Amino acid sequence: MTISGQPFDDFRNLLAAMPQASAQAVAAVRAHDAQLTKPPGALGRLEEIVEWLAAAQAKVPPTVERPTVVVFAGNHGVTAQGVSPYPREVTKQMVANFGAGGAAVNQICATYGAGLKVFEMALDIPTKDITEDAAMTEAECAATMAFGMEAIAGADLIAPGEMGIGNTTPAAAVYFALYGGKAADWVGRGTGVDDDGLKRKIDAVERAVALHRDHLRDPLEVMRRLGGREMAAIAGAILVARIERVPVVLDGYVVCAAAAVLHALDKSALDHCIAGHLSAEGAHGEVLKRLGKKPLLDLGMRLGEGSGAALSIGIIQAALNCWRDMATFDSAGVSDKA
Amino acid sequence: MTISGQPFDDFRNLLAAMPQASAQAVAAVRAHDAQLTKPPGALGRLEEIVEWLAAAQAKVPPTVERPTVVVFAGNHGVTAQGVSPYPREVTKQMVANFGAGGAAVNQICATYGAGLKVFEMALDIPTKDITEDAAMTEAECAATMAFGMEAIAGADLIAPGEMGIGNTTPAAAVYFALYGGKAADWVGRGTGVDDDGLKRKIDAVERAVALHRDHLRDPLEVMRRLGGREMAAIAGAILVARIERVPVVLDGYVVCAAAAVLHALDKSALDHCIAGHLSAEGAHGEVLKRLGKKPLLDLGMRLGEGSGAALSIGIIQAALNCWRDMATFDSAGVSDKA
Repeated sequence: MTISGQPFDDFRNLLAAMPQASAQAVAAVRAHDAQLTKPPGALGRLEEIVEWLAAAQAKVPPTVERPTVVVFAGNHGVTAQGVSPYPREVTKQMVANFGAGGAAVNQICATYGAGLKVFEMALDIPTKDITEDAAMTEAECAATMAFGMEAIAGADLIAPGEMGIGNTTPAAAVYFALYGGKAADWVGRGTGVDDDGLKRKIDAVERAVALHRDHLRDPLEVMRRLGGREMAAIAGAILVARIERVPVVLDGYVVCAAAAVLHALDKSALDHCIAGHLSAEGAHGEVLKRLGKKPLLDLGMRLGEGSGAALSIGIIQAALNCWRDMATFDSAGVSDKA
Repeated sequence: MTISGQPFDDFRNLLAAMPQASAQAVAAVRAHDAQLTKPPGALGRLEEIVEWLAAAQAKVPPTVERPTVVVFAGNHGVTAQGVSPYPREVTKQMVANFGAGGAAVNQICATYGAGLKVFEMALDIPTKDITEDAAMTEAECAATMAFGMEAIAGADLIAPGEMGIGNTTPAAAVYFALYGGKAADWVGRGTGVDDDGLKRKIDAVERAVALHRDHLRDPLEVMRRLGGREMAAIAGAILVARIERVPVVLDGYVVCAAAAVLHALDKSALDHCIAGHLSAEGAHGEVLKRLGKKPLLDLGMRLGEGSGAALSIGIIQAALNCWRDMATFDSAGVSDKA
């Protein structure tokens, strides 16, 4: 692996310092689960969710008292290639919409009492067009990852989300660079490009990866050259969550591009993450397979904003409430198996 | 179709009086959805959920202000055949556990602010052993269906659930009678029978259906001879919900046996129902295909109690909140597609 220069050193040092899942906490969760008034295994993946929380938090009981959706917004020079049917100013308009409580993710967070924080990142200065240049300098990429690290303060579970007109194109470029195959394997219709727009997206991804091909062995270079600010910030947020023992719910296609960079750096880097949902954006299912994650939800959503991950917070709350508050066979006087 | 006697007449009259889905309400939901600050279709099945609510309630906006899980508990003579690893008294013990707030479904309802009502039905007098006799007389079955109809009062969305040690055996018998194939196709491990128990279940289902085979062309006879009280009550609840324009969330394997009886009586009888989840109990996926329902959740649950349907209430609330409370492109000043 090519070692990039100093700007990424802090990030690599954190990667080397990741704590492991707590086997002790998982064992304690399982022992309590076995006492609950239900047949063993009957709550299916709800049981797995509680084990994941405890493993990541290294505490029993685990908590989901301050679940927070953290949305990062960025703009992308590659929109000059005609890769989105929406104009670039929509990114800033949607940030205002988040602030006013009018977006989908606002309603989903309100449904479950989850927090929502939105961070816009230099929307008036889009990243460079990846078909012509690296999206970010090393210093800019490193600073953006560090910015993402600050964003999770106070949460005991985070769901990173993103907003950025055109950002499924850099995400596709990241996947193509990391996983190979053909550009078309990774490119979807995003917010809904027509056939011509889809061709332009595929072409842009091919040209971007070809331009940078000699510098893509280091996943952090993939991020900085082909990604975007929201992806860099999300990578920072996911990594620092690991260090601070905060479980992470992964959203869809764009968030997982940031996760995929971490996974490419270290196969264990997403051990504290669960996949909140399967996005309808084409390649997301293939991405989740490569990340070794089975999604909690599959509802045909493809909105971004962290909306799919936010929706799964309601499931996670119910899972924890069952484990924490159910009666035991003893306490309820219920007969166990004969 | 054999026409049973008078006791079922009221039920058949209601079946003939079912109101249709409101196409007008669906059109109004779609028109509003098109204005919301998101790409068309980007909320996937959340959009379908709101259309389903409006179609069933025939009102715009639809409401989910009093979602209620309605659990019916019954006991089964067929437990004498050794079809469950748990003793029959667990049914009553679990009813007490529901009352004390200690079961899984209590925690799930509490998570989403859903109501929970539990009805026990003559637990000390199990239905007859279906391998030896009809589970219920006509009068008893009709009275139980009528009892189920009373249970939904006050709700604007219901999720019927069930509790009854041994009740996956009568449910399997209902499926085998309605759908044919082999008994083993429909029998699962329920709360967790071992291989010998599974053989006893399959054998019991085969003998029950063989005993009653000359009387199974009428789905209501299938219910009364092979089913159980909780299934009869649930069939009544689902049907009266249709009449009263209350949408229904279907739970898993046993609840769907009641739904399957209605569906066999009239292919449109479940048009107001959505499948809350796919149960891990073997044949549930095949059952949902036959009912034409795609489940909202697939989390490997197999608990009963209405727990899977209750879990999907959180998704339904979020779906409605998005549709009802999101800003429009106009109100938020967000640019629509170029």
